[in-house]
Parts: sequence; C-alpha cells; structure tokens
Amino acid sequence: MSGILGIYSKDVEKISQMMYYGLYALQHRGQVSTGMAINNNGFIDYYKDMGLVNEVYKKETLDSFIGNICIGQVRYAFSSERIDKKNIEPLVIGYKNGALAVAHDGNIANYNSLRCSLEEMGSIFQTDLNSEVIANLIARAANTDIVEGINEVLEKIEGSYSLVMMTKDKLIGARDSYGIKPLSLGKTRDSYVLASESCAFDTLGAEFIRDITPGEIVVIDESGIKSIFKKQQPRKLCSFELIYFARPDSLINEESIYLSRIEMGKQLFKESPVDADIVIGAPDSGIIAAIGFAEASKIPYAEGLIKNRYVGRTFISPTKELREQGVRIKLNVLKENINGKRIVLVDDSIVRGTTIKRTVEMLKAAGAKEVHVRIASPPVTNSCHLGMDTPNKENLIGANNNVEEIRKDLGIDSLYYLSLEGLLKSVGDKGFCTGCVTGNYPIGKDGVKCH
Amino acid sequence: MSGILGIYSKDVEKISQMMYYGLYALQHRGQVSTGMAINNNGFIDYYKDMGLVNEVYKKETLDSFIGNICIGQVRYAFSSERIDKKNIEPLVIGYKNGALAVAHDGNIANYNSLRCSLEEMGSIFQTDLNSEVIANLIARAANTDIVEGINEVLEKIEGSYSLVMMTKDKLIGARDSYGIKPLSLGKTRDSYVLASESCAFDTLGAEFIRDITPGEIVVIDESGIKSIFKKQQPRKLCSFELIYFARPDSLINEESIYLSRIEMGKQLFKESPVDADIVIGAPDSGIIAAIGFAEASKIPYAEGLIKNRYVGRTFISPTKELREQGVRIKLNVLKENINGKRIVLVDDSIVRGTTIKRTVEMLKAAGAKEVHVRIASPPVTNSCHLGMDTPNKENLIGANNNVEEIRKDLGIDSLYYLSLEGLLKSVGDKGFCTGCVTGNYPIGKDGVKCH
Amino acid sequence: MSGILGIYSKDVEKISQMMYYGLYALQHRGQVSTGMAINNNGFIDYYKDMGLVNEVYKKETLDSFIGNICIGQVRYAFSSERIDKKNIEPLVIGYKNGALAVAHDGNIANYNSLRCSLEEMGSIFQTDLNSEVIANLIARAANTDIVEGINEVLEKIEGSYSLVMMTKDKLIGARDSYGIKPLSLGKTRDSYVLASESCAFDTLGAEFIRDITPGEIVVIDESGIKSIFKKQQPRKLCSFELIYFARPDSLINEESIYLSRIEMGKQLFKESPVDADIVIGAPDSGIIAAIGFAEASKIPYAEGLIKNRYVGRTFISPTKELREQGVRIKLNVLKENINGKRIVLVDDSIVRGTTIKRTVEMLKAAGAKEVHVRIASPPVTNSCHLGMDTPNKENLIGANNNVEEIRKDLGIDSLYYLSLEGLLKSVGDKGFCTGCVTGNYPIGKDGVKCH
Amino acid sequence: MSGILGIYSKDVEKISQMMYYGLYALQHRGQVSTGMAINNNGFIDYYKDMGLVNEVYKKETLDSFIGNICIGQVRYAFSSERIDKKNIEPLVIGYKNGALAVAHDGNIANYNSLRCSLEEMGSIFQTDLNSEVIANLIARAANTDIVEGINEVLEKIEGSYSLVMMTKDKLIGARDSYGIKPLSLGKTRDSYVLASESCAFDTLGAEFIRDITPGEIVVIDESGIKSIFKKQQPRKLCSFELIYFARPDSLINEESIYLSRIEMGKQLFKESPVDADIVIGAPDSGIIAAIGFAEASKIPYAEGLIKNRYVGRTFISPTKELREQGVRIKLNVLKENINGKRIVLVDDSIVRGTTIKRTVEMLKAAGAKEVHVRIASPPVTNSCHLGMDTPNKENLIGANNNVEEIRKDLGIDSLYYLSLEGLLKSVGDKGFCTGCVTGNYPIGKDGVKCH
Repeated sequence: MSGILGIYSKDVEKISQMMYYGLYALQHRGQVSTGMAINNNGFIDYYKDMGLVNEVYKKETLDSFIGNICIGQVRYAFSSERIDKKNIEPLVIGYKNGALAVAHDGNIANYNSLRCSLEEMGSIFQTDLNSEVIANLIARAANTDIVEGINEVLEKIEGSYSLVMMTKDKLIGARDSYGIKPLSLGKTRDSYVLASESCAFDTLGAEFIRDITPGEIVVIDESGIKSIFKKQQPRKLCSFELIYFARPDSLINEESIYLSRIEMGKQLFKESPVDADIVIGAPDSGIIAAIGFAEASKIPYAEGLIKNRYVGRTFISPTKELREQGVRIKLNVLKENINGKRIVLVDDSIVRGTTIKRTVEMLKAAGAKEVHVRIASPPVTNSCHLGMDTPNKENLIGANNNVEEIRKDLGIDSLYYLSLEGLLKSVGDKGFCTGCVTGNYPIGKDGVKCH
Repeated sequence: MSGILGIYSKDVEKISQMMYYGLYALQHRGQVSTGMAINNNGFIDYYKDMGLVNEVYKKETLDSFIGNICIGQVRYAFSSERIDKKNIEPLVIGYKNGALAVAHDGNIANYNSLRCSLEEMGSIFQTDLNSEVIANLIARAANTDIVEGINEVLEKIEGSYSLVMMTKDKLIGARDSYGIKPLSLGKTRDSYVLASESCAFDTLGAEFIRDITPGEIVVIDESGIKSIFKKQQPRKLCSFELIYFARPDSLINEESIYLSRIEMGKQLFKESPVDADIVIGAPDSGIIAAIGFAEASKIPYAEGLIKNRYVGRTFISPTKELREQGVRIKLNVLKENINGKRIVLVDDSIVRGTTIKRTVEMLKAAGAKEVHVRIASPPVTNSCHLGMDTPNKENLIGANNNVEEIRKDLGIDSLYYLSLEGLLKSVGDKGFCTGCVTGNYPIGKDGVKCH
Repeated sequence: MSGILGIYSKDVEKISQMMYYGLYALQHRGQVSTGMAINNNGFIDYYKDMGLVNEVYKKETLDSFIGNICIGQVRYAFSSERIDKKNIEPLVIGYKNGALAVAHDGNIANYNSLRCSLEEMGSIFQTDLNSEVIANLIARAANTDIVEGINEVLEKIEGSYSLVMMTKDKLIGARDSYGIKPLSLGKTRDSYVLASESCAFDTLGAEFIRDITPGEIVVIDESGIKSIFKKQQPRKLCSFELIYFARPDSLINEESIYLSRIEMGKQLFKESPVDADIVIGAPDSGIIAAIGFAEASKIPYAEGLIKNRYVGRTFISPTKELREQGVRIKLNVLKENINGKRIVLVDDSIVRGTTIKRTVEMLKAAGAKEVHVRIASPPVTNSCHLGMDTPNKENLIGANNNVEEIRKDLGIDSLYYLSLEGLLKSVGDKGFCTGCVTGNYPIGKDGVKCH
Repeated sequence: MSGILGIYSKDVEKISQMMYYGLYALQHRGQVSTGMAINNNGFIDYYKDMGLVNEVYKKETLDSFIGNICIGQVRYAFSSERIDKKNIEPLVIGYKNGALAVAHDGNIANYNSLRCSLEEMGSIFQTDLNSEVIANLIARAANTDIVEGINEVLEKIEGSYSLVMMTKDKLIGARDSYGIKPLSLGKTRDSYVLASESCAFDTLGAEFIRDITPGEIVVIDESGIKSIFKKQQPRKLCSFELIYFARPDSLINEESIYLSRIEMGKQLFKESPVDADIVIGAPDSGIIAAIGFAEASKIPYAEGLIKNRYVGRTFISPTKELREQGVRIKLNVLKENINGKRIVLVDDSIVRGTTIKRTVEMLKAAGAKEVHVRIASPPVTNSCHLGMDTPNKENLIGANNNVEEIRKDLGIDSLYYLSLEGLLKSVGDKGFCTGCVTGNYPIGKDGVKCH
C-alpha cells in the first residue's frame, strides 16, 4: 500500500506546496519514504528520502520546485523490497521520448515474469520498484503515442495498480481493470488533482469530482482532460481498503469509509450479540466499528486502551529484558475503567494474532471480568499478492487455527469474526476482492524467479 | 507544564533506558525539548536538546549513561521564555557541595523578586529557567545539610512546583505546599520512581505507591526512602490537570482522569440537556467528555472530526494564500456523518476561541443542521501565573464576552459551559485551584521587574 | 576526473575499511560525492552520498559491509552533469546475468551517440553517468561471458576511461586503449587492489605491482589474476595528470609525479631565466615547480601566499558587497616577505586566468617590486572532451589572447609558459595526450544530441 | 589556545558575516567548537556548537543576527576540560547590570582558587570555562562602572588571558599584564576589530592598527575608543606563538611570524651545520624553518612528506590491526625523492616524540641514507599551565631524556635543538615566556582543589 498524488496546475509557484499538504493527507498510506517529482519547463526534477512528509521536505526544496505538473508518493514498507534509498518513488527516467516520472500504488503480480523478459532483452534494473518494470515497458512500447503506449503496456501488467505518471506536458492517471486500488479525481480553481483517497482533496480545499473508473487511463494536459479505457473487468476493490487502510474521512466508490465501518460494527452485533458492560475498540483500527457495535447494542461505548502517539522513526525499541520487566511502549490500559467489567473488544481484523493477544492480556491483568472479542472482518486465511502485504500463510493465525482454537489461545470468553456476507452487506456490495479471507483472487500468482 | 521523572535504581545499566521510556510516557506534558542527567559515580553527566524523546536521544547516548540515579524532563513551550537550547532542563550545576541537577514542573510566581535579589548578591544567570533560581538559592542556603537546605529554600519560593533533584548520592522529590502540580511515587523490583503522572509507572512496569503529599520533600538514597514536610496548606491541585493536561490513564489524587472526564460529560448533560442526533468530541481533548455526554443522554456517540497525527516539529505551515484557498492541515470533518444532522460538539474548554470557531465553521460547511456546543469546564476568565501558560486576559474570549456573545460569535444554536459546582462534583472535590475560572488563586502575582 | 578503487580480499571483515582509507587517499581526485559497493555473498550492497569520504561514511556502515570484493569512487563536479544524489558512482544494477557494479574515471566521448542508440532500443536512464551507458551496453552484449562481453562493449566506447567493475565473484579493471586515465595494480598479504593512483597503495600498506596497460582488461577472482588485451593504441596519458591532477607522491607510468614537477620548474628556468629575490609557488598547484625553479636558479625558494585550509562543503560564500570591501577567504599574502622584492611566481597552468590575476593583484598590493610569472605548461587553448573538464574555448584566456596580451592584462613584468618540448622532456616522453595545449586529441568529439 | 574576535560596527546587517569570515581566519587556533554572540538592541543572542566555522554556522543564523557589537571564539580541545556542548564560548550571562558576553584565550592559573572562593560565596557553575569565573567575579565587583569593575576583577586573575567582552553598548578587550596571549586592534571603514591575530584583519580587508598593550583594557563604544591600563609587567609573550601557534601571515608584536621562523631555520644551520642532499620540513609546522635552513645552508629545499588534508571531525580512525598492516592515514613519504639521499628533517619542536619517531621510520623505510633532525626550538621540559596545553611532564620526551638518548631512540644520524639564545635572537628578543623550555614561568601554579 502506498499513497499517490498528481497535480496539474496553472499556479506554478504553489504546486509543490499543494503536493506537500496532499501527501501529508495521505501519510497513513505509507510512512517509510516519500518523494515528489516536478516538471520544470520540460525538465523533470525530483526530491526523495526516507521518512515522513514533514521530515523529508524542507522549505527550500519546495520553494525551488516550480512547475505546472507534479507527482508524488508516500510509501509503505513492503516486505518484498529492501527499505532502502533506492526504492523510493516517483521513479524518474529519461528514454527515447524524453522524461517520464511514475508513482505506483499496488502490486504487480507478474513482476518477476516481466522483469526476467526485460532483462533478457537487455534492460538493467537499479531498484526493486514495480514502477521500474512499468517504465521499461513504456520505453519499449511499439506505439509511439505516449497514451497509446501506456495503454499497450498496461495490457501486459497483471496485478493491482493505481498509477500517476508525468511526461513533459501531461499528467496521466491509470487504474487497473479490476479497480483493486483506489484513485480519485478532484479539482480546485487552478488545478486538477489525482489522489489515492479523497481526504487529500479536503486537505487541499479541492472538490471531489469522481473515482477513476477501473481500467481507465486519464490524461490531463493543456487541452484539458480526457480518458481512454482498457477492457474493463468486474470491479474488485480491495476490501481491506474499507476495513483498514483508508482514512475514515475518505470516500471510496462514493462510499463513506467511516459509515462502512460503523455498519460493520452494527452488523457484528447483529450476528453475534453479547451482554456486557462496555464496548471498547482496539486503537486505532477498531475504534469506529466499536462505536457502531455500541450504538447497535446500546452497551455504552468507552475507551479502554490509551495509545501513545509520539513514536517516531528513530524510536529505540526496548530490550527483551526490559519488556520482560514490564516496559510497555505504545499501549496502556485504562485500569479504572476495565476493572471488574465485562468487556466487548472490537478490532478490524486479526492477522498474526500477536497484537490482540497482548491487548487481551493487558485487559485481563487490569481486572476485566469477561472479554468478548468481535472482529469486523472474516478470518484472514490467505497471503495477498495484490498489494496488501500480508505475511506468509504459516504466520496467519486464521489460516492455521479454527475460531475456537484462537479463542482458547487468547484466553477469552467469546470470539466472533464478521461473516463475509455481513461484511459485504456493510460496505454496500459493489464488487470487492476478498481474496485474503476467501482465497478467490481475481489475478493469480506468478511463480517465476529470474536469476 | 512539563513532565518530570526521577529514578533511583540498583540496575545501573538499565536506568537510562528506563528514563527514556518514562519520559516518553510523559511526552504529552511537553514536546519542545527534553533532557536527562545521570549520576555516574558522583559525576553528573547530561544530554539535552530540542525535540521529542524519540528525536533527541540516540542509543549510543543511553548506552553510555551508566549510573544509579537519573532525572529527566520533557518541556513545554512557555510563552514567557525563549524556545532555545539554553532553556532545557534538567539544570546541572557544580556548587560548594558538589554536583546538583534540578528538573521542575510549574511556575515560580516570585521568580523575578528572587532573581533580582540573587543578582544583587552577585549571582549570574545563563538561562531563563525557574530551576536556575532554585539552584542559586540552594547554593546560598544557610543550612549545610542538603535536605535541610532545600527545605529552607522552598520556604522562600512562592508558586507551583513539583521538583525532582539529584545530588551525587540522593534522589530528591518535592511538591509545593498547595500541591498545585502533581508528583507520584512508584516502585519496581530494583528502583524507586518519581513521576509527574502515574502513566509513566504503567509504561515502566512499576507499581503505583502514592502521590507525594503537598509540602512533602522525599529523599531516596542508599539507606532507603524518607520524607520531611513543610507547613502544609489546603490542597489546591490545578483543576486543568483533570480537565485537560493529564493523560486519561493517569491517576492523580487517586482519581482516574478518564473517569473524571466521563463524569464531566455526564454532568454537562444533566446541567444542559439537548435533543440531537449525535454527540461528537473535539479531538483529542473533548473526546472523553463527549463519550460521557453520549452515555448520559442516550444520543449516539460518533466521530465527526478526523485529526491527522503526523505533524512533526519541522512541519512547514501553509502560507496565508494557501489557507485562504482552503488548505486545511490538521483536522478534517466527516461530511457524510455530519450532513443534515443535529450535532452536540463537546470540548474541554475554550481559551482564545479560535480553534472552536474554525471547528464549528467546518461542521456548518459540512451541512450540520444544528450545532450545540457543550464545554466541560466554566469560562476561562483569568490568565494563570501558576504554570498553566494561558494567554493574557485580553486574549481570553471568556474574559471579554458573555456566553450569549460567544454563542453568537460562533454562529451556533446553543452553548453551555459546565458550572463550577458541576466541575468540582465531577472530579470529587478534594481541593482544587480554580483560579483561571474564578480568579481565586492561592498565591498572588509578583510585579517585580529586575533590569 | 574521479578516483576509483577496487579491492579483492580474503579478509571479508576489513575490506570496507580498506576501501575507506583507500578512497580517502584519492580524495584529491574528487570532492563532490563518494560511494562504495560491496559484494555480500553474491548480493551487491552499496552506500553513496554527496560529500567527502570522512563526511559520507559512518562506522556502522563500514561495520555492516562484509564481503570479499568492493569497489568505490570519489567524484569530481563535472560541469556536464547535475551535482545530484542520482549522479554518484559506483552504479549498481541487476541484469540478466545477476548483479554488476561499475565505477569510472574519464569521459566517454561518444556518450550521446551510445545513449541515443540505447534509448532507441528501449533502454531507460536514471542518471547522467557515463557508467549507466556502459552498464546498458554490457547488459546487451552478445557474448554471454562477462569478460568477453566487457571486451565487446569497450570496443564501442570512444573516449577516456579507467574502470573498476564487480560481478558477484569477480573484480574487473579496464583501461582505455590510449591509457588516457591512470590505473594501477597493488597487492597486500590478503588482497589485490586496483587504484587510480599508487598513493592509495601507500596509504593501505600495499605494494605497487604495475600500471594496468592501455587496452588491458584485468580480471581478479578466486582463481587468481589474469588479463586480456584489446587492440592497443600508442599511449596517450593525459599530460595534466602530471601537471596538476595526480598527487605528488603517486607514480604514474613508473614516473614520480613530484620529480616530474621539479623537472618542469627546472626546465622553466632553463627556458626563461630571470633575476629575482625570491621564487614562490601559487598554492598548492605551483609549489613543486617553484621549488624546482628555485633549485635551478639558485634564487631562494620562499612562501609568499598562505592558504586557509578549512573551507568545507557548507562554507558560506561572501556577498559581492563584502568582497568589494576586501573580505578575502582562501588566500592571504605574506606582506613582510613580499614587500620591496622581485618575485618569481610559479604556477602549474592558466585556465581562465581569474585566479592568477587575483594573486598578482595581492602581490602588487603587498609591495612586490617586480612580478615574473612562470607557468609549468604551455597555454591551454582547447576545451578537453576526454575528462579534464576544462571550460569552453571562449573562457580559456590562452585561446583568446597571446602571451603579451595576457602579461599586460595581469600587469606583470614578464610571463613565460613552458614550451611543449620542455614539458615533454620534463615528464620523460612516453606518450602523452596534449590536446588541451596542441589541439591534437587522439579521439574526436561526438556532435550528437538525443532529444 | 583559542582564537577570539570582537567587532564594533556601524553596519548592523553585515557584522555577523564579518564575524564568520574573521573566525574562519582564526580557525587554526581551535577546531573543536565555535560560538558567536551578538548585541541585538541591548539583548545578547548567541549561537554555539561543536565543529569548524564552516560546519557550525548556517546562512539563516547569520542572516538573523543583526546588531552593532559581536564577539566570537574558535576553541581548542583543552585537555583539562570536557569536550562538551556546555564548554563553548562566548559565555553569555545576565547579571545585576544586564547582559554580558565573554570570550577568552589563555589559561587562568588560579582558576581553582577563584572558583572555590566563589562557590563558598554561593556561586553556581554550569561549565568548566575560565570565562565563567571571570563573569562571576565581574558580577560581584565592588565598582559599579563596568570598566572599573573589569579592572578590579583582572587584578585578581593570575594567568594568561586575552579577552573580548560585550555589554549592551560596549566592546571591551583586555590583555594580561605580561601580554602572554596576543590581541590586536584593526579597523575598517565602518568598524573596529579586536582579534587574536592580524591575519583576521587581512581576511576582513581591515587595516592593522596596533597590538593591544600588555595590561591594557580597551573600550569601544558610541563615543569612540579609549583605554585604561593595569600595572604593566615586563612583557612575556608565549614563545610558542612564534614557534608554532600563530599563522605565518600574522604579525605579533610587529614581528612577522613567517620571517621569525625563516630566521629560526637559518639560526639552526648556523648552530648545527650538516652536509646533506636535501632539506625537508615536517608538515606543516616545520616547513618554514626548513626553507630557512635550506637558504642558509645552500642545500636544496625539497618536499619529502605529503599530508592528506581532508581529515575531518568525523574521520574514522583505523583499528590497531589495520595500522599494523600498514594503513597510514595522514602522511606519506615521497619515496622517489628520499631514496638514497642524505636528509635534513626540520621540525618546530618535539613534545611527546611519537610523531617525529613515526616520520623518521617512514623516511628510513623509503631508503634515506642519513637522517639529520634539526628542531627549531629548545627541548620542551616543562608542562605549561598558562595556556599551551602541553602534556604532563612524564610524557615530555625532552624532560626525561637527554639529546643523545632521544637521537638513539629515533635511530637517526644526528639531532640538534635550537639553543635558547638562538631562538630569542631569531624572534627579536622583546620579552618572551620560555617556561616550557626553561621552567621560568612569570606566574606560578595553583595547587587548590575545590571539592
């Protein structure tokens, strides 16, 4: 998962600052690195580094970045790639048609196949980025028109992708045929904006226009905005965008993330009611569903766990010895509110199970009389190859244990996962990828290894 | 406001890491600078810098800090002092009895008088810190016993203070006679801990023992722990510790901050009920009282405003031009949840009124049908000189306008401030300073100017 | 000009430190950026940044770099490329045969032609580095054997190059057919070393073995060292390596740089004797020739100009206003030693003429009675396209003025440039490129522009 | 040893830049830390940090420092004080008469006595700086006039000091009664400048006016410049200022440092002639005397040792293992110039003897037939307590061995130290402290320890 952003603006002096605040709004989609590239009179300049938006960019850099097109990214720590300065996007290249910059959200399933065949044809690679494969394919496209060339290239790419790209005079957005990753279009007085999530538009004072359609390539230049369309597939938006990834104040597919999560919580109660004193959410991902559960159940919503929000990139982790002596960094329990109470603990999902286990232990140690865990999604049983970056199957607690085994392992009084039907009902079923909980992925894995 | 911490430990290798995690737990009490001083075989070494705990300390520094006594601070940006490298605590000095380190939370009301008279006697000052006056007084105390000397000095100091101090062989804590600022004692297997708030004990896996008594001086050394007591005054704990400053998972005066704030919310509803569709809190300070209000009113609790949590020290503020074009950094409104609804917005207090005004505007712009503001404390009408760092009276909206005027200014449907009685009832009236809302301060101001 | 270094060692723990000290010894060949790449069990890792060797590398990086092959570079600020993080070598790539790292000294004359034709074939470029063209050519070589492939590639490259390259199991060195750029082979107990200059061997305690022959490709791996040879051309070592670039304690072509420069000074006196009180050198480049001139002329050698050596990367340049008021940063004149004296000022060469002009002004202002300038090379009349990075012809004072005009412009009593014959005699004529002073370059320019 | 600088200027915008370039000119007097303090409308602001002038100051800091008086320092690593952020000058304090800043060069011999008695009177100390004692004494001076107060204080201070100080409206310079440390007065169109050495005036385009007289206190303010004088002692300038510390382009006591060192070299030859092939200097300190020796002896001057000038603050020292394997960092020998030759090696002095020993070993290993060492000063036999920061007597090779023993230890053919008479003759005997070579110090040591 990453956050991507593209701006085409008449206001050449302000565009890099707009990019800065827009990327900041998307920071939740990736905290490892960030970069922006700017079209400065046909020459593409860029700045990239490890860290958060507020750490990477200095005022001097923004002030020196003048131009009418700009693209940027905030990047997640993919387990498949080295966390390294070379693996930061946008990727900026020169090729036969001039300069090109690419920023990508998603995962190309046939990356290895494509890279091997490019290497066989003599391509060299300087990064582990998906976008380097895309850029190489574009440079080798038969069609000399850039938009047609991109269209030709995207036909070859299997997997999930939302893309923002920049040539010397065009801002180009694209979304895979299934629409697995989100991408939206917004507008201010002076500019068009493409963003992973609509919350970036709110931050920029931009108006939300619409989602980019699955399979759409949108081209913005001096002459305005136009689109071409690849063969469209049944929409398969990643369901974890609604469950976990997206910011609650974003709209995806015209659906409010916040209201979807409220609905999941209500649905959870409908499917698995329980008598208890308070409903709490696991911070931060379970809070909204907990509010929904509380509203439906009439059990009071409460805070039970306090998160320390100041952890930064350079935080020194406690030694094993200190952890064993009880040093606890991120989360504390509100003992006075938990002691003697029957608790419903709501979380969005369970992946490895380690976090929820520690949380339950804290609640028990604080004197919780009963703990009932309600999860706002079905058990995660498959490792995603389309950009969710879940661990291998052997590390997924839901893939290796049934619900009762997990309940026992957690030492709790009851455990319930939202049904797939309940989930789909909550999010207004307009076509979702549910591969991680069902195994049904729209696109298969690529078994190739190059060398 | 600042957070202070002192540790006396048998584990000389781990003490600096304990200090690190403990200061991190107190980070909400000050984000401007931090320092720690360590007793390294009678020699006091220290490290201080501007920034958050996770930014300032490197692993090498912690690893090099070996010792059995350590004190530290996280510091707030006081409007009365330059934000400057010189103004970081602990203050570490050499004087006739050897080395001494001092960290302070609070505000010495007669600082100017004391500094002037010290300067007249030939003292020089290298900082703006209250603790430099304290250290100078200690160095000039008639009594040669350090504890008696401190007792003698504290008699001269008027104002609010919680102190942790370190000599070559003692950790010393002290609290002013009114107990305006909090200070608690905790214990692990190997160590005693003094901390501004008990949440630090939870982070360190330490057991909460008790609050330090107003007027108490506690001395911890090889021979154990003992206390002497100054003349005690009626307790006057700063009421804003409960309303706003302290972390909800801390206990102050054996009172849960979280439950006190829930109670304020419930009391608010009792005093000023209103019919509405949802109750929302202003993030983060109004959230808990909002939950309480919702519980009492049976109106559903909801989130209405989303806060971007990634703003760091180096964040570049938007230009006026960008702000006017709608760039909005910290807070976004959940339009889909607000539109067409009657809203109760709960906040902890109103100081200048600018933040709440902007918040209300966002709610209105998002289509809120009605907005009813409920404030979990009485109007702030006085500028505090005892450590709360409120602005001058002319900038306090509550000092210059009545409730109806403020309501009109905010353009809302109703506005209610919690009554003083309601507030005191909520927090279990055991003696509070309510000067900022009543004008009744236990200690007067100091009109002196030195030169 | 750059400095390049390659090490093949049995001591995997020490190799990165050897690289560090070796690059440090070559620092005079480039102060803009530096990088090193290491073969870590077949995986090539690297670290690169802007700055000096002592600024860029941290102990942690060196400690984490374990491996048996390592190559590195210190890089000069070429006027043809952006001073930018992307333009740092070694270049590290993956291609069909695995990993490859390349570091280069020199300038590829047909870079544009090669890049254009590579782009036409679908290559993309992420840097402005010559080595990116080389890496692309290697990836497209018909011959699958890496050494044969490199041989095939080097046939296509016109220009000056010394190269160190690394595959997963080989260290490879290469030198262009004319031997324009230097490269030498050394040896320690545990390792082979390839370096731009032999002074690196002295720093590493390594033994100098021999110069790499023009047109030689040397391959070092587990099985030892072997060479293949391209068609060799008459040797054309860049004469400015001896005049200016190389460190005086290096041997190039078995010739001592120091003694060559002493000889140039002596020859200068023979060709253009002058009666004077003292001989001084322009720091630092004219010092050695000045010593030679003094020795031959029996006029006492003296210091006349003192250089401040502390200027670093972040030095703040004086404003024009301050310069006009006399603020003088790098060079001061020894007034007491100059006043009333007849001075011979020796420098290695005159390029733009601005520095020598300022120097002469300082000497005159300090009271020099006569100033006689002697230059240890002929007038620079041509802009080099083979790696010397001279400015365009219109900025070369020697290309646009005769000696008498320059003398008048400098306001001096006499001016003499060493004759070409004198220069060649001084350096022991074994084949030199003298293009910048004669216009006779062994390789022509490339007029191509890609897009 | 430190470098100090004070500027009083009408040009408030340029003064901080003047300070920057002036401190840069004095960088050779201290490379550990630097600071500057500026009088900004009566308020004294400052910036200090560890590092070189070009590392510490940023353009923003200089641009923000507006004022008409500025003082600064570059600081040496005194073995008696921690290398620590707290120990950077200028020291800036507030006291009963307002603000005061102090920068000091030298060593106060009775520091301990003064500090103990100040502590007894209730002073606290936050640094190890001599200037903190001075500031405390000024704050306690009986005389309320600042200049009279300083005069009163300086009477109590024994030791070497040159001082620049700043009050809200005055720049004050002072030099100890013996004039052990240098201080000079210069002038530009807009400003007066006080500097440790006159080379700072050259850098600033300022005119050298005169040395400050031993025992003089010079006061510069709006009304101009005036002086008062303490009881003057026979001048005792530190002889090592001429032998080693000062820059060759400075004048001290109207004597050229460069010419004095040339004279020492000539005198060395007169006292101890030797037949040899070349004369070389130990870089950098022995170069000038070597030139003088060569001139007197008619033996050719040559370079024999090349110094790598790029070592910076963060340079990683080689491990013992690497050193044993021959890794050599700073100095290389010019083998081709040394091999088979009879060498005269000139250095300024021998302190511990370790450096010269390593140098001699390198010359021998390079094939020197004979090595004759000539030292331009007498044996250092006493540890200086007046600012030269020599090691303890047990580490002084000259204090524990006679010349023949040292010669044997170095394994050289002859060794000669310049006689005291020869030294004094070379520098034009106007009164020097020669304590380190004679034991005759003008001021005794202070045996006091405080606590």
